[in-house]
Amino acid sequence: MRNFKLTLAYDGTDFHGWQAQPGRPTIQGTLGDVLGKLTQEQITLHGAGRTDAGVHARGQVCNFKTQSGLSAADFQRACNALLPAAIRVVAAEETGPDFHARWLAQAKTYEYRIFRGRIVPPFEWRYVLHYPYPLDEAAMQAAASQFQGEHDFTSFAAPSGDENGAQERNAIREIFGAELGRTNGGEELRFAVRGRSFLRYMVRKIVGTLIDVGKGKLAPVDIPALFEARDRTRSGATMPPHGLCMVGVEYPEVWKIS
Amino acid sequence: MRNFKLTLAYDGTDFHGWQAQPGRPTIQGTLGDVLGKLTQEQITLHGAGRTDAGVHARGQVCNFKTQSGLSAADFQRACNALLPAAIRVVAAEETGPDFHARWLAQAKTYEYRIFRGRIVPPFEWRYVLHYPYPLDEAAMQAAASQFQGEHDFTSFAAPSGDENGAQERNAIREIFGAELGRTNGGEELRFAVRGRSFLRYMVRKIVGTLIDVGKGKLAPVDIPALFEARDRTRSGATMPPHGLCMVGVEYPEVWKIS
Repeated sequence: MRNFKLTLAYDGTDFHGWQAQPGRPTIQGTLGDVLGKLTQEQITLHGAGRTDAGVHARGQVCNFKTQSGLSAADFQRACNALLPAAIRVVAAEETGPDFHARWLAQAKTYEYRIFRGRIVPPFEWRYVLHYPYPLDEAAMQAAASQFQGEHDFTSFAAPSGDENGAQERNAIREIFGAELGRTNGGEELRFAVRGRSFLRYMVRKIVGTLIDVGKGKLAPVDIPALFEARDRTRSGATMPPHGLCMVGVEYPEVWKIS
Repeated sequence: MRNFKLTLAYDGTDFHGWQAQPGRPTIQGTLGDVLGKLTQEQITLHGAGRTDAGVHARGQVCNFKTQSGLSAADFQRACNALLPAAIRVVAAEETGPDFHARWLAQAKTYEYRIFRGRIVPPFEWRYVLHYPYPLDEAAMQAAASQFQGEHDFTSFAAPSGDENGAQERNAIREIFGAELGRTNGGEELRFAVRGRSFLRYMVRKIVGTLIDVGKGKLAPVDIPALFEARDRTRSGATMPPHGLCMVGVEYPEVWKIS
């Protein structure tokens, strides 16, 4: 069996998230169908993370095994010819047999985009949360940096389950970097967070908490107490999915075949 | 009666063009309905140009007359609250009674975007033509400049009718500027054309002709003969609408109220 790694970009607007579900368009289901047609095999796709409905990606990674004789370049070209324009294979490579997109991920980076201007351009509304109201952005920046390091993220998770849908009792996660800043000509506030792995809704709940800080409902110094509390009702709301984008996934170099 | 000028941006993907049609979503119809609700009047909207189905705008202009007491800022805010996110009122002002978005337009600018890279980002496919095949871009640039000036554009028009749907026998149009260049980090070829007015499909047929030049089917020196011929079968194909965007409309300053 050969093992292929694909890097994907997608507009999640019209998909019910990554994970295949009967009767609903999903990224895994759509790509799996195309790979099934190309290989005439039943393809199992492993994604680095299960993005939720409406979440986008610029650098989702997945892998699959096949007995097909097609090359990585063949797969990329054929997938891009057969997939809807909202899903693109931006890179493809053959890997060693042990590569696994989910288990071997060393770090994932997500971005959450908040449009601060008065009018969201009609070409951008699918990709940004519109929040034109006053926010104390300096306080938000101070709060964002508090998420770095190893913490118990129970207060920043869905009621149960991690980003891969597993019932997960251990909510300790390590965040390598968390930064908030203005971008896109100054009209946009972008939160970028890089970590080893994430709980389900974790980024969206961190953003909701940062917005509470921006509104003065919480202060940066309150963040450690939220970790302590292990109580999801005390953190901010889960912000809508369409502002979120999975930017990239990092793997150790050793898994490369060449 | 008061007279208001609105500047609109829209993603034309899901609309059947500017002009109101029964039973189909259009820009004029959607905006007219919203203004009707706000004013409780039957609103007649005059657009600077009737963009075709699938064509976008960053700076379409329209005007309407009303007895409403709402201010321009009120109209802008209320329209943006009630319109779908794909249509935005980016500016609004009250004008003198004689302002007419169509009759008084001095110049309109359109852009046509051709994506030259191998993979169109999934966030861009609605707004670009994907053309990754070889093109002689220097020849295309030389041809583009030939469209400047006053010409008979019969060879570059729909079988009949101008951009406003009128049966128009006079196909002489003046183009103030026509330029082709790389943009967007070099992955995109953009054709910008500014003129007093345009025939229906004119920009899309000019782009089709430029692509024929890029492929070597035509040379820049052939363009004058195409004007002479007054034969639409000899120019290039009408390129798809989704690469086209109405960028802006210019009016004499004198029509401003303040």
